[in-house]
Amino acid sequence: MCRWMAFSGSPLLIDTLLYKPKHSLIDQSQHAELGAETTNGDGFGLGWYPTDPVLSGTPGTFHGVGPAWSNRNLRDLAGHLRSPLFFAHVRASSGTAVQETNCHPFRHENWLWMHNGSIRDFARLKRDLLLEVDDALFPLIQGSTDSEAMFYLALTYGLRDDPVPAVERMVGFVEATAARHGVADPVQMTVATTDGERIWAFRYSTAHQSRTLFYSRTVDGLRAVHPEVEALRLLSDQDRLVVSEPLGVMPDAFREVPESTYSVIYAGQDEMSGFNPR
Amino acid sequence: MCRWMAFSGSPLLIDTLLYKPKHSLIDQSQHAELGAETTNGDGFGLGWYPTDPVLSGTPGTFHGVGPAWSNRNLRDLAGHLRSPLFFAHVRASSGTAVQETNCHPFRHENWLWMHNGSIRDFARLKRDLLLEVDDALFPLIQGSTDSEAMFYLALTYGLRDDPVPAVERMVGFVEATAARHGVADPVQMTVATTDGERIWAFRYSTAHQSRTLFYSRTVDGLRAVHPEVEALRLLSDQDRLVVSEPLGVMPDAFREVPESTYSVIYAGQDEMSGFNPR
Amino acid sequence: MCRWMAFSGSPLLIDTLLYKPKHSLIDQSQHAELGAETTNGDGFGLGWYPTDPVLSGTPGTFHGVGPAWSNRNLRDLAGHLRSPLFFAHVRASSGTAVQETNCHPFRHENWLWMHNGSIRDFARLKRDLLLEVDDALFPLIQGSTDSEAMFYLALTYGLRDDPVPAVERMVGFVEATAARHGVADPVQMTVATTDGERIWAFRYSTAHQSRTLFYSRTVDGLRAVHPEVEALRLLSDQDRLVVSEPLGVMPDAFREVPESTYSVIYAGQDEMSGFNPR
Amino acid sequence: MCRWMAFSGSPLLIDTLLYKPKHSLIDQSQHAELGAETTNGDGFGLGWYPTDPVLSGTPGTFHGVGPAWSNRNLRDLAGHLRSPLFFAHVRASSGTAVQETNCHPFRHENWLWMHNGSIRDFARLKRDLLLEVDDALFPLIQGSTDSEAMFYLALTYGLRDDPVPAVERMVGFVEATAARHGVADPVQMTVATTDGERIWAFRYSTAHQSRTLFYSRTVDGLRAVHPEVEALRLLSDQDRLVVSEPLGVMPDAFREVPESTYSVIYAGQDEMSGFNPR
Repeated sequence: MCRWMAFSGSPLLIDTLLYKPKHSLIDQSQHAELGAETTNGDGFGLGWYPTDPVLSGTPGTFHGVGPAWSNRNLRDLAGHLRSPLFFAHVRASSGTAVQETNCHPFRHENWLWMHNGSIRDFARLKRDLLLEVDDALFPLIQGSTDSEAMFYLALTYGLRDDPVPAVERMVGFVEATAARHGVADPVQMTVATTDGERIWAFRYSTAHQSRTLFYSRTVDGLRAVHPEVEALRLLSDQDRLVVSEPLGVMPDAFREVPESTYSVIYAGQDEMSGFNPR
Repeated sequence: MCRWMAFSGSPLLIDTLLYKPKHSLIDQSQHAELGAETTNGDGFGLGWYPTDPVLSGTPGTFHGVGPAWSNRNLRDLAGHLRSPLFFAHVRASSGTAVQETNCHPFRHENWLWMHNGSIRDFARLKRDLLLEVDDALFPLIQGSTDSEAMFYLALTYGLRDDPVPAVERMVGFVEATAARHGVADPVQMTVATTDGERIWAFRYSTAHQSRTLFYSRTVDGLRAVHPEVEALRLLSDQDRLVVSEPLGVMPDAFREVPESTYSVIYAGQDEMSGFNPR
Repeated sequence: MCRWMAFSGSPLLIDTLLYKPKHSLIDQSQHAELGAETTNGDGFGLGWYPTDPVLSGTPGTFHGVGPAWSNRNLRDLAGHLRSPLFFAHVRASSGTAVQETNCHPFRHENWLWMHNGSIRDFARLKRDLLLEVDDALFPLIQGSTDSEAMFYLALTYGLRDDPVPAVERMVGFVEATAARHGVADPVQMTVATTDGERIWAFRYSTAHQSRTLFYSRTVDGLRAVHPEVEALRLLSDQDRLVVSEPLGVMPDAFREVPESTYSVIYAGQDEMSGFNPR
Repeated sequence: MCRWMAFSGSPLLIDTLLYKPKHSLIDQSQHAELGAETTNGDGFGLGWYPTDPVLSGTPGTFHGVGPAWSNRNLRDLAGHLRSPLFFAHVRASSGTAVQETNCHPFRHENWLWMHNGSIRDFARLKRDLLLEVDDALFPLIQGSTDSEAMFYLALTYGLRDDPVPAVERMVGFVEATAARHGVADPVQMTVATTDGERIWAFRYSTAHQSRTLFYSRTVDGLRAVHPEVEALRLLSDQDRLVVSEPLGVMPDAFREVPESTYSVIYAGQDEMSGFNPR
């Protein structure tokens, strides 16, 4: 449905990863290989944490409704922003409107959230899902997607305090609601979320046939795949990249996140654990 | 907040009323005189019923997110579409996103709805208002405005069967909900709705200080105000125009709809009655 | 680079041909099969002549900068406009900006023009090409594409009086200019133009390896390919369709226009002749 | 026609000057007081030089086609970018298309250019003006405005080597061309241009009735006008602001640039001299 990329590491010009690699996310917006759709032209988004100590921890976001591949503002920003942690997303709408408020990453305070996948029969489940959202959070929902609803449910369940159980409860609630409505196999997701320090990445689907999810083993591996990207030589071994599909052809550089798994990336470390909806 | 215009009568090139008059709606998008804001540049919309007998009764809609005054598509469409009944709207957002799904007129089946005004503290009331919307209608809500919520509440209360009581119940429900939340004077509205045959126009505010609403007395009057508009000479006496503010300077051509009043326009007839929220 | 479609015949709801067929132009905007690019998501356009006798012969145009496949306004217009002659185009930019003034079809008075292909090294040739444009026409150029430059050159050479020699001179001038600059094989084009009565369609490239161009043999053939399209049953044998690539899989319904050939379609007749740049 | 603002000084969060002041440029986009138009809603632009030493001297630009006042991306960027030198512009089109390639500031290599005003009867003069542009620069023109044509003429005349004589020759050439075409009083302009170190600001019109232009006397003055802007307390006395109209009500803080004058701002110094078209 969509393709996304999350980076954490030494402050990097966003362009370095967003445009420069051969099968970059921008290339994937037109020619995705592992997704349900080859074209991801229904809007895009960028969320970045600033390097500038004067700026607070709130990430900046930039969203657009046209395709990423032709967007001159995105290209210019990517070439002028350095960041130690950023999310980028290209969207293939599953039917909801193409508008900025439906573009990922979604932001709440210092948190970002982006998603590839869908809730089956979302229109039928939408009312019950939204009514579960916390009263104080409800009016902050801006768009009409399942992805944003999942974010606000996870926030309702305590994402900011303890992300993994919050996402597990969110998925559990969606599955329970779907069961009440007779909707089979409702959840199909790879999700990334961050508070600006850690990145949590989830791969899960009710039917255990999830969208793909990968992360870079080490910078050494990335450098081997992308000798054409100068900036990679400057990276440290603490840098990590999580992606919907590998940026290049050499499989060694990226490790696939298994089904029903989440990973946490922090300060150059990453660990994986099982993901169990509640 | 916004300006709008509704026309019913002999099929007319939309351009004739939308662009040609001296203080046309397009002019009002930049230089409104009676509204809360002089600029209505946060999107626009057109809804029209076709003259073509082959086409069914469903109106067409065209929405844009930029200002109406510079939109070349709107100008071109207005110059190429004739219609016996159309709505046009220019928007001044009271804070919700500028996106097509927030542009009026809203459409449901053969109905159109457009609004000038606001629900005070809508963010606080939104959850309770949406909760009241019929289960089957809920997933059809596309945007995030108070105006669309009012439409779906009115539909929930039977707009399609009996419009006036449905709108009265909608307003009554908003006022009751606001009272529960301690929000004073919640409703400020002029609303137009149509099924393609009749137009209902409502002027109401809880504080009895509503936005202005006018309708054209007779085509004779319009012709006197706009001698520069050739097409007006072709109009019949059955034609009627309802507007947020008069298109020209001569006050005789337009009659103000009083506070707490609605009017019904049908087949060249119009009648006014009192509006009483339930 | 792009995909396009031209229709002439009994007034038809545009939707019937633009959306309904299995491999419609809208489908081709995401999944073109015969073009240089599979994705044509860099804007789109529609140009139509009205059925309404009140309206003059000037065609209406509607252009958008996002992909056609997700555009709600286009879908709505196509479902509410009937026309005896219309052009539709989906664009894959070869580098020039994605903006409405670069979207086809281009319009001048009662003429429309649309193009698939490109002028090689247009940036190098642009100045010389534009300086050839007639003084009075020059300021009417709105965008920055090679396609629009070709239109204005053809207008300069008398398109409105005698289209075929005008297009032949235009191509000849481009080729001569390219030769002066040392640019080989400069022209690659399939072009359609119309005055609202006739359609001229050209297939030509300097290297004689042109983009594909087809037209429907007869409505009988179209009906056989698209049994799912109800409206085709209502068509007469005078209806003709010219396309960059066939709308369906059955090759019999569409006849390929050969290299270096143009065809004229008028009142249900079509004829082909050789195309020779001057 | 337009409103603009140029800042040079200690690196500043752009938001501080673009949004925070009471009569900020964003406010002027809806409610300009000294301009020919009160509304400047036909697109906007931002050009900024980065503080980040890793980034080269090329400024970033961000352009949008809707009104600045409702643009969420602009607000977010302004709140996340610090810059020692930036240009911001809100546009009121005098007829040319509302598209990003017509939005100021225009960029060429490390130079930015923005303009308020117009060339009278530009359509008539356009061909002769563009003909004068250097062959190598000609294909770099992206849009259709008089403002961009002025920039490329100034570049042709050596803007990058010696800005003032280049702008004087540009204006002289426009005036001579206009004279040949019988167009009186052709130039009306306030222009700002920069190489990332110095800012040159020009106020000139053929009829000696130019659009207004002001610059801030000292930061002390600015602080007095805008006690509500926290960040101003952090500014040094080297900071300078050039604007189409003052950001606040206290006239002392801004000094009007006289007719037929240019000023150069560099390292906290500013000097004015007479401007004489050649």
